[in-house]
Amino acid sequence: MLNDLPDIAGQSLSDTQSGRDDRRLAIDKVGVKGIKFPIAVRDKNTHSLVHCTGDFELFAHLAPDNKGSHMSRFIEILHSHGKIISVDSFKEITQEVRNRLDSERADLKVAFTYFREKESPVSKIKSLMDYEVELECSVTETTHSYQVTVHTYGTSLCPCSKEISDYGAHNQRSKVSISVTTSDTVWIEDLIDIAEAQMSCQVFGILKRPDEKWVTEHAYDNPKFVEDMIRDTAIGVINQLDGRYKCCHIEVENYESIHNHSAYAQMSFDHP
Amino acid sequence: MLNDLPDIAGQSLSDTQSGRDDRRLAIDKVGVKGIKFPIAVRDKNTHSLVHCTGDFELFAHLAPDNKGSHMSRFIEILHSHGKIISVDSFKEITQEVRNRLDSERADLKVAFTYFREKESPVSKIKSLMDYEVELECSVTETTHSYQVTVHTYGTSLCPCSKEISDYGAHNQRSKVSISVTTSDTVWIEDLIDIAEAQMSCQVFGILKRPDEKWVTEHAYDNPKFVEDMIRDTAIGVINQLDGRYKCCHIEVENYESIHNHSAYAQMSFDHP
Amino acid sequence: MLNDLPDIAGQSLSDTQSGRDDRRLAIDKVGVKGIKFPIAVRDKNTHSLVHCTGDFELFAHLAPDNKGSHMSRFIEILHSHGKIISVDSFKEITQEVRNRLDSERADLKVAFTYFREKESPVSKIKSLMDYEVELECSVTETTHSYQVTVHTYGTSLCPCSKEISDYGAHNQRSKVSISVTTSDTVWIEDLIDIAEAQMSCQVFGILKRPDEKWVTEHAYDNPKFVEDMIRDTAIGVINQLDGRYKCCHIEVENYESIHNHSAYAQMSFDHP
Amino acid sequence: MLNDLPDIAGQSLSDTQSGRDDRRLAIDKVGVKGIKFPIAVRDKNTHSLVHCTGDFELFAHLAPDNKGSHMSRFIEILHSHGKIISVDSFKEITQEVRNRLDSERADLKVAFTYFREKESPVSKIKSLMDYEVELECSVTETTHSYQVTVHTYGTSLCPCSKEISDYGAHNQRSKVSISVTTSDTVWIEDLIDIAEAQMSCQVFGILKRPDEKWVTEHAYDNPKFVEDMIRDTAIGVINQLDGRYKCCHIEVENYESIHNHSAYAQMSFDHP
Repeated sequence: MLNDLPDIAGQSLSDTQSGRDDRRLAIDKVGVKGIKFPIAVRDKNTHSLVHCTGDFELFAHLAPDNKGSHMSRFIEILHSHGKIISVDSFKEITQEVRNRLDSERADLKVAFTYFREKESPVSKIKSLMDYEVELECSVTETTHSYQVTVHTYGTSLCPCSKEISDYGAHNQRSKVSISVTTSDTVWIEDLIDIAEAQMSCQVFGILKRPDEKWVTEHAYDNPKFVEDMIRDTAIGVINQLDGRYKCCHIEVENYESIHNHSAYAQMSFDHP
Repeated sequence: MLNDLPDIAGQSLSDTQSGRDDRRLAIDKVGVKGIKFPIAVRDKNTHSLVHCTGDFELFAHLAPDNKGSHMSRFIEILHSHGKIISVDSFKEITQEVRNRLDSERADLKVAFTYFREKESPVSKIKSLMDYEVELECSVTETTHSYQVTVHTYGTSLCPCSKEISDYGAHNQRSKVSISVTTSDTVWIEDLIDIAEAQMSCQVFGILKRPDEKWVTEHAYDNPKFVEDMIRDTAIGVINQLDGRYKCCHIEVENYESIHNHSAYAQMSFDHP
Repeated sequence: MLNDLPDIAGQSLSDTQSGRDDRRLAIDKVGVKGIKFPIAVRDKNTHSLVHCTGDFELFAHLAPDNKGSHMSRFIEILHSHGKIISVDSFKEITQEVRNRLDSERADLKVAFTYFREKESPVSKIKSLMDYEVELECSVTETTHSYQVTVHTYGTSLCPCSKEISDYGAHNQRSKVSISVTTSDTVWIEDLIDIAEAQMSCQVFGILKRPDEKWVTEHAYDNPKFVEDMIRDTAIGVINQLDGRYKCCHIEVENYESIHNHSAYAQMSFDHP
Repeated sequence: MLNDLPDIAGQSLSDTQSGRDDRRLAIDKVGVKGIKFPIAVRDKNTHSLVHCTGDFELFAHLAPDNKGSHMSRFIEILHSHGKIISVDSFKEITQEVRNRLDSERADLKVAFTYFREKESPVSKIKSLMDYEVELECSVTETTHSYQVTVHTYGTSLCPCSKEISDYGAHNQRSKVSISVTTSDTVWIEDLIDIAEAQMSCQVFGILKRPDEKWVTEHAYDNPKFVEDMIRDTAIGVINQLDGRYKCCHIEVENYESIHNHSAYAQMSFDHP
């Protein structure tokens, strides 16, 4: 791997990757992948910090005449922001990558499990729910943008099964993934709220008996095809994130309980 | 990696791993992992061959005074059995590993996706179902044994949810894993049949509307907790595999539709 | 899940998803995911069939005023092409999906492990190598296109480590992924050949001692940064696939032996 | 899923799983799996807390005549220990599971990524290293035991390749997994230290040029087969954990740079 020139006096090891390259091909992204680092993410409502384990990727654009990148600098920049990195500093980190790598563009991506407290519907017992989240930050000399992706699980209940059966209806765990590109602030909680509202029913960490009765009947009262879930989620994004996203990508996967394969839908749209 | 002495005349490269070792520690298993190879598995009913992609592990026991194993021999033995390896030759391959590596014991393990044709319950449409399977073979000078593991998916419907709710009942995809150790013949199909019989309902590749009505109502008529599924599966093994296994390990995981975590049970028992 | 209207006389179950939808949102892709099915892929050189296990996704575009798709039709179309599906029929399958789902566009995607025989460099021992492959086919009324993606493993040896060290040089397993979009024929073997030629050294299934000496020295003689590997692979695509691709995406990941993270590069370009 | 009887006055939903079971089969482990929860782990040296994301499994033994377990109680017990669970309370949590589920035995298992600061060998730059860890706790009425598993990555360099080649030697990323069962205290750091000492060379987060020279030459000076790594690690456990473990299981996997498969070894032994 390409490691940096030593700052230590007296060393004079040669720097093979600082030369010019004559293949004349730019590389869109060069960098490091699979860097685990503790991060702190601010909760929208309480403003307290949620501790998470980040899985980082850091990249810089490489111009056609530059032979190589300095890989150790990416990790050094990450470490220079403390032992727990705040999401608030992601833009600054990405800008530092761009500057120190002398690049026209830099990208940071981090994936982590986020936690949010949630009340059960009847007995109001609080429990933590976990959500898979990906945050990306891209900067050029004059622009920056974020991409926020949240994967939310819930229940889907099949309208067809309900309609044709004398009793019961098959239902299953579903994953709704919303991804928005923005230069504004979009909270993880904003995307969770939109996704959970469009399931046949939300899922919870702890359910007591009266809660379980409620979720069973609520799902039965709200049957949705994968097509309904994705369209209703899109309408949720359009109505509730107005003015705060440039483009949106949604995926819904139902882990069918009557098959061992999934029903799936995806759509992308720009802010109107 | 340790590769074999050349058979090619004139070569005389040194053989660093054939010496004696003075740490005096036996190694239970030394070998190779992650070898992909095409295999052919015989269908119990039609006796035709099912083509699968095997993911192999091959190991030999290493005696305390042996410095090392010859890794290339494992792969050579595998390749010497043709371009598509039959499951029927697994025991022979394992014996060859033991002999050529001059070891007291050898083990072969292969994981693959197996296919079986299945009819939908009402419209009788045939479709392929896939099952995750692991086969292991262990040989010593005087003994051999097999371990057959089959992971079967199906539907579980919650008795509690059905009981307490005015209508509906939550249900979800479940995985039943049965693993038996035997010196006899246990067919993959035998374990699938036992597992599928104990689900709230089986799953299918293709379901037309009358089938979907049938599976919905059938699951509702057969509610089962994870505890019921594992106990009923155990009774299936005891009753239907009589005399053909030494020990049995069962796991059941329900991918709950009302939570984003699983309900889970496991048990192990010897042939009575 | 949405299953099809019965063809069986006398059934008259209602068809909840054939109605009109008034949310007025098209869905880019609706369909099924995670369908395992045996496939046969033709070898470029021998023209013999390689048996593989396909993991399928099948999607149709859904117009804004269509309420839903008929999920069982996707699987029925797949099954109507025999018990082992030939890659040669992927375009026809995708067209059938488009026609039967009455859609403006359909997509098929399949991922599988492909096998190819390969000779070791000195002792000329033949062994099977496995490659991860993804094939996609997209059709509209008047157009069709393919995307072929091949992931090839090899060795990368670090030029910087070689240059600054008195002896040795760190090296590691690397993955080169080439993805081309085309309406022409691009063989899996074409992409493997391009990728393997640009590694510090190729990897092999079986290596005897003289082979191991050769690959060790060959890698040491051909040090490459991740930036070199991706640029040289791009030049390979440009020179060797001339006229047969519309756009190309390449990724290289080095699973560094001196870190527990990866060095990574990616680039995309259109046919000039 | 089986959820608990309501504590809320006035509810009287039936409790289907509290009855007696007449299949007369004990279940070794019944419970929940895939529960994500924030945890805090104490660093051996600084005694400060490391924030990690735990992936929990919680199980209780189910006696033959007990119909079912109460799944919501597992999650409630977890939540009753605060918003971030300390590893110090794992034994207490497991005992509570045993008591509240009225079981003869209970098990807790948690997997997480742990962080530790580490200095590069020459330039002494500090960076975080991540380690995959699993902790298990098992309690009966009179006994308790822990299992600590740590997966540590490092570099292995092949002695055979070094010996037979005129220059260079293939090397690669390797994973050493040490698992010890104990009723005593074994720190995660203890197992990391043992594993890292037996690699051809340790890996680091940040390496400057003089560090990269050092690790390259150090690995070349310390060639080890997978057999050497596992035996030397075993001797490390025997010498350095004396008196503090009952049994030990070790696995070593070398992600070979000259193949796309792994060399692998495993061994188990009891405290002498």
